[in-house]
Amino acid sequence: MSLNKPEPPYYAVIFTSTRTEVDTGYAETAARMLALAQTMPGFLGVESVREETGITVSYWESLEAIRAWRLHPEHLKAQKLGRKEWYENFTTRICVVEKQNSFVR
Amino acid sequence: MSLNKPEPPYYAVIFTSTRTEVDTGYAETAARMLALAQTMPGFLGVESVREETGITVSYWESLEAIRAWRLHPEHLKAQKLGRKEWYENFTTRICVVEKQNSFVR
Repeated sequence: MSLNKPEPPYYAVIFTSTRTEVDTGYAETAARMLALAQTMPGFLGVESVREETGITVSYWESLEAIRAWRLHPEHLKAQKLGRKEWYENFTTRICVVEKQNSFVR
Repeated sequence: MSLNKPEPPYYAVIFTSTRTEVDTGYAETAARMLALAQTMPGFLGVESVREETGITVSYWESLEAIRAWRLHPEHLKAQKLGRKEWYENFTTRICVVEKQNSFVR
């Protein structure tokens, strides 16, 4: 996502999680979900980092876009597997980005 | 930060960054800022993960609390060093958390 585009207001979904020790299918599904999200209308960008905790922030044009992504059949299937197998716990936060500032060296 | 507390609405500051190769003083200052933030009025919690990109999300009761933290003299000094030495680029986004959902195994 380029640093100063888009201009606020837009939406962010902050997904923080801790994984179980079950790895079966996780990396493939995570990569597939990342690729699939980028094809959704209203998708603006995503940033994802994992150590013990993982933080993924995705950016969206509207609540409708977030809702359509949440309800995408393939994503619903992944969410179900996430609860069954891959995550010890997670929190999803839906936010309005009101202001931003960037620095580039 | 416990998963379902506080209840929205509250504020999140999403800080995404890429580091330079300069390490001098970085880890100490990062740890100090984390400790100092927790002493600020209106601080609710923080989550921080770094690979190549770093994502730190801090949570706050109000815009006033965020502003007071941004202007804390020791934090201002750290921000200046960050721009001078430690960061290749960064973006700070100020957000209102409108909704959240948690899962615990």
